Amino acid sequence: MQAYGPVTAATLGRLAEIVGADGLSASEADRSLHARDQGFYAAHPPEVVVWPTSAEQVSAVMQLASRERIPVTPWGAGTSIEANPIPLHGGILLSFERMAAIVAVHADDFQVTVQPGIGHRDLNAELARHGLFFAPDPGANASIGGMLANNAAGIRTVRYGAARDNVLRMQVVLADGRIIQVGSRSVKQSSGYDLLHLFVGSEGTLGIITEATLRLYPILEHISAVVATFTAVEAAVEAVVAVRGGGLDPSALEFVDAASIELLNRNAQLGLPVGPTLFLEFQSATAQAAAESIRLAEEICRELGATSVSATANAGERRRLWHARNAAYEMMLRAYPGQRMFINDVAVPISSYPRLMRFIRAELEREGAAAFLLGHAGDGNIHVIFPCADDAAYQTCQRINAAIVEQALALGGTATGEHGVGVGKARFMRREHGPALDVMLALKQTLDPLGILNPGKIFGQP
Amino acid sequence: MQAYGPVTAATLGRLAEIVGADGLSASEADRSLHARDQGFYAAHPPEVVVWPTSAEQVSAVMQLASRERIPVTPWGAGTSIEANPIPLHGGILLSFERMAAIVAVHADDFQVTVQPGIGHRDLNAELARHGLFFAPDPGANASIGGMLANNAAGIRTVRYGAARDNVLRMQVVLADGRIIQVGSRSVKQSSGYDLLHLFVGSEGTLGIITEATLRLYPILEHISAVVATFTAVEAAVEAVVAVRGGGLDPSALEFVDAASIELLNRNAQLGLPVGPTLFLEFQSATAQAAAESIRLAEEICRELGATSVSATANAGERRRLWHARNAAYEMMLRAYPGQRMFINDVAVPISSYPRLMRFIRAELEREGAAAFLLGHAGDGNIHVIFPCADDAAYQTCQRINAAIVEQALALGGTATGEHGVGVGKARFMRREHGPALDVMLALKQTLDPLGILNPGKIFGQP
Repeated sequence: MQAYGPVTAATLGRLAEIVGADGLSASEADRSLHARDQGFYAAHPPEVVVWPTSAEQVSAVMQLASRERIPVTPWGAGTSIEANPIPLHGGILLSFERMAAIVAVHADDFQVTVQPGIGHRDLNAELARHGLFFAPDPGANASIGGMLANNAAGIRTVRYGAARDNVLRMQVVLADGRIIQVGSRSVKQSSGYDLLHLFVGSEGTLGIITEATLRLYPILEHISAVVATFTAVEAAVEAVVAVRGGGLDPSALEFVDAASIELLNRNAQLGLPVGPTLFLEFQSATAQAAAESIRLAEEICRELGATSVSATANAGERRRLWHARNAAYEMMLRAYPGQRMFINDVAVPISSYPRLMRFIRAELEREGAAAFLLGHAGDGNIHVIFPCADDAAYQTCQRINAAIVEQALALGGTATGEHGVGVGKARFMRREHGPALDVMLALKQTLDPLGILNPGKIFGQP
Repeated sequence: MQAYGPVTAATLGRLAEIVGADGLSASEADRSLHARDQGFYAAHPPEVVVWPTSAEQVSAVMQLASRERIPVTPWGAGTSIEANPIPLHGGILLSFERMAAIVAVHADDFQVTVQPGIGHRDLNAELARHGLFFAPDPGANASIGGMLANNAAGIRTVRYGAARDNVLRMQVVLADGRIIQVGSRSVKQSSGYDLLHLFVGSEGTLGIITEATLRLYPILEHISAVVATFTAVEAAVEAVVAVRGGGLDPSALEFVDAASIELLNRNAQLGLPVGPTLFLEFQSATAQAAAESIRLAEEICRELGATSVSATANAGERRRLWHARNAAYEMMLRAYPGQRMFINDVAVPISSYPRLMRFIRAELEREGAAAFLLGHAGDGNIHVIFPCADDAAYQTCQRINAAIVEQALALGGTATGEHGVGVGKARFMRREHGPALDVMLALKQTLDPLGILNPGKIFGQP
């Protein structure tokens, strides 16, 4: 444990000089509101919540925090689930609620420059007026800053990539208060070290993102969907490989297990056949291209043994389907009233997906645990969602979670595909990275020698 | 200047213990063969050329080099043009000629694991048997290791990205000999710091790539091409934006200036109208999709004032066109016998492309210099290619080059889109990166405290 400095009355005074009296709060209510994210982890309130309105204010806060060795934890929307923004060591919580502006839309460049606090849904609502959108979508209305800090992804990664693939340039405030620019608005850059991607996914432990220029894509008008039911996961995965191998480039390629299909049928009257199922989405520039994608995808799924394939280019039907898919988590909560859901998040090379699935089913059976399996199959990413009625159930799902992570790593995969390390995955980092973890620690030491940036995350307790 | 240790007879003996007697050479001939790349920069021979055959040997060489503080410069195929692999301080040159194997093809995962010495053309010849290809193509048969170290790109970046977008995992040997794995074969990973992309583009100054798992794409059978001639660069760029905005996703989107078109007509009998021209390529899963892409692209180009648009889905015609485009550099060499070509490489946000072009033309006019303009327009990347008859011409093109770089930076672009920093672009790094350059230097100091990895590159002379 490092000896952090406390937030004293004097500290509060100096903070007020930086952000103004209404730019901070040490009230019980505000501290509680920033004590936990949407995951399972225990609450830790900060000593003070600070709402900066500029990078210069963030810089001044970091200079103060460096001088007094006060921990600083950045906070976007609090929608993460691995405790990523929980201020474990108290100190200053930097909320980006008041830095949520669109700085500039560069429509011809397919780019937008934003402040970190803006929600990706709010951003996309504005971008729609330009016929453009920011593709990563983790479900909740996460902030852009949080998504970049976590390298969030979601259902459209198979075509558009994760957060790290959709950012070109960032402004970052370092632990000592220096303000730097990383990356470039040029989409191509071979100029020096790739600092941009070093800060993306670093979960606020190396620097604080205060502005970002994002890569956008045109909204394509012709969207079609295919739902294919299989008798075995293996056949579904074969179809995933064949669809991608055929160059179809789906914009979503989701796996939904039989239990989740039953849930969707019950709650959204989808009337789908029950079995391992793929949801595919295609975004096309023309109606012809959309029809062609549907035709080919149907053909592939049937050839690979799908027992049922249905397709639609009808916007209403497609929306109903995706709305149901997106509401699956809420349906699960309703199906297990009063229980909390623990969400596992691992990813493997797609060829290992069937083996991982078999392992997961065997583990669930052995432990007698109920769970839903929802996966971004196109990326080899799977989420096992456990209802937890009590502590015993939580302990069980923790055992299964650890076993699944170990299995994913053994299969050449990762402990976290898109939720980040936070607190819960820190214990798997040595296993996943080996001696590369020492390099990460060395970089942390170089950029944050006092250990004040979001301490306790990624590497575990300092 | 750092005090590097010399390669003594004792050093050669210890190296022979590591790689065997036939694994190294201090002969004049071998040293000369590794003294310069394909660019303009002066030759600097290494003291010894070493051909390792495994990461363990590279590790042992690095341990030795660390103990004796000997500079080590990795060498792929020597096809770079910014002096990136020239051993400026002598020492050990590590050639990866004997580490050029395909380790494993993971066809279902759209991945291949290779040693760094393999040429991308040789790799693609083998991958074609699996219906897959590695997309980045810098023109020459560059080695994969060199392409990753340089973040090389080429004509298909507009759809498939640069080298950094097409690598998932690497094995890297650090300056002190530690062997680490960075990235993951999982296409999604939010697990700790992105060390993968820190090493990509670091030009051998942070570590040595000894193995890489690359992202592959399916070879699409239906390839079509569109050539559109405009009266002004502005209209051509408008078409670039409109084509991308329409969701057409071309696999190449190249700008060729009037002078280059004349050259292509003269040498390849293309009979194209002379003017600012776009070459577009579409790779499609079906013939219908190909036809549709052509139709839409033609429509867009005509609407935006193209004076001539021709399209073809005929493989022979298309190949003739791209062969001519790819041979443009050789044609330039033939058009200026005995002269060397200096190639400029900057990139800007696409909306600034017309302004950059106007600036370049004005500079050329002011200096009375001849040059060809070839650009990866889809990426905002432009190459100005200067024939240099003598030292005076070289000085002129250096002046123009510097002015173009400054202008690209002023327009929010980069000093190098795809050739890397090497020696020639080092002087622009402070201007491009500002205080972020100090972060790069701090990382260099952390990972290579003795400064033995490819000294003199990116940051200039130590």
